[in-house]
Amino acid sequence: MADTHRFRLTIEYDGTPFVGWQRQADRLSVQQVLEEAIYGFSHEHVATQAAGRTDSGVHALGQVVHFDLSRSWDPFRVQEALNYHMKPHPVAVVASEEVGPDFEARFSATRRHYEYRISNRRARPALEMNRVWHVPMPLDADAMHEGAQFLVGNHDFTTFRAAECQAKSPVRTLDVIVVRRRRDLVLVNCSARSFLHHMVRSIVGTLKLVGEGKWQPKDVLGALEAKNRSWCGALAPSAGLYLTGVDYDGAPGEPPDESDD
Amino acid sequence: MADTHRFRLTIEYDGTPFVGWQRQADRLSVQQVLEEAIYGFSHEHVATQAAGRTDSGVHALGQVVHFDLSRSWDPFRVQEALNYHMKPHPVAVVASEEVGPDFEARFSATRRHYEYRISNRRARPALEMNRVWHVPMPLDADAMHEGAQFLVGNHDFTTFRAAECQAKSPVRTLDVIVVRRRRDLVLVNCSARSFLHHMVRSIVGTLKLVGEGKWQPKDVLGALEAKNRSWCGALAPSAGLYLTGVDYDGAPGEPPDESDD
Repeated sequence: MADTHRFRLTIEYDGTPFVGWQRQADRLSVQQVLEEAIYGFSHEHVATQAAGRTDSGVHALGQVVHFDLSRSWDPFRVQEALNYHMKPHPVAVVASEEVGPDFEARFSATRRHYEYRISNRRARPALEMNRVWHVPMPLDADAMHEGAQFLVGNHDFTTFRAAECQAKSPVRTLDVIVVRRRRDLVLVNCSARSFLHHMVRSIVGTLKLVGEGKWQPKDVLGALEAKNRSWCGALAPSAGLYLTGVDYDGAPGEPPDESDD
Repeated sequence: MADTHRFRLTIEYDGTPFVGWQRQADRLSVQQVLEEAIYGFSHEHVATQAAGRTDSGVHALGQVVHFDLSRSWDPFRVQEALNYHMKPHPVAVVASEEVGPDFEARFSATRRHYEYRISNRRARPALEMNRVWHVPMPLDADAMHEGAQFLVGNHDFTTFRAAECQAKSPVRTLDVIVVRRRRDLVLVNCSARSFLHHMVRSIVGTLKLVGEGKWQPKDVLGALEAKNRSWCGALAPSAGLYLTGVDYDGAPGEPPDESDD
């Protein structure tokens, strides 16, 4: 395999028409679109690996993917060829580089960043349809932020984990969570080495209870400490979630667990 | 007509699926969607009037519309009913109020504001598909801004006017035009009492020549002074254009000419 060349891509996509990142037999995935485009220019059948296995309807601004080709290509040519071959699907390669054989998009990632966007106004979204969660009742973003701070740190996130989550451990370290208002939008930004399945959407669904005044901020701590899924708010819809970026700092760190949201 | 009630709406729409604002026999317009929704809750057939007759594919964040109903309605109920009846079309009423019989969305407008959005990066847009003009070659936004300043003021805009423009006069007063970069986006903001048909898109298509370095900023003045359509750059596509707002300051002012872009 001395001739193998590994490429790292940063990709953007509208998750609306896809079953999610991961290939499935019956419905179109982002992975299938990308792998078919790689075949389109290289005539090589490759398996791609992504940093975050986003669910159906979840968007990406900075998903990171790697794959190997048996011959050398100029990374810029790879980007251009993929953007041509992926038309008309709403997937675009925004950066491309050749990396060493040790780089793994999923396992080398040291931090993942997600943004959740809530359109908090009376009128349903027109231009932002399928791009936000529409919550017509006014939300108190400051209270949501206060409640969210109880989640920062190393915790058992069983309450905020999908029933079908396959991770071995429910323990994660949430590095940062910030809730802020920008006009009609309430934005929730979270960063962690890794997330459980549905973790961000579960947290946002719970913080909405705080924003509406049904919960006090400190009730988020109670929900976390309950370690019980039934304490979680209703899952926030996928359309508001964006994988905004992934960090790779070269430090080996702990081997990550699976099941990114 | 003592019982007539006039309503003013602020509406937002994704122009992509529509033939434009104005009703046409064969294809769906925003006006038709809105008027059918008004019928849906009121059972009255009304004619609506809009501040800007946006073309096919042009978006609105702050289009203003008025119409009359023979009975009284709570404006908030009107907004809610319209947003219900316009589903699933990407049109939303973001504000609603009852106004006096002298208010005319088109003829009372004292200033219209448009924004043109260029995605200026190598990769084609994924999440912003149909929302921006994709220009892959780097643009010098400062040079574009410098060139644009020659257009500010009262001028004969024949160069920047569609062949089919029906306005009586090609003279308009461009109050403000600002070109700036925000990361990968180049934004062009223009304000005027009224615009000629295709005026903003013609200006943006011309400023692109400056941004690419094919023209010097002062060549925009030459194009303006030529008063000749053949000096205009290629028309910028509709997908990047947004009617962002309309001002009504109560001053009567000059009677506006027709043909808003």
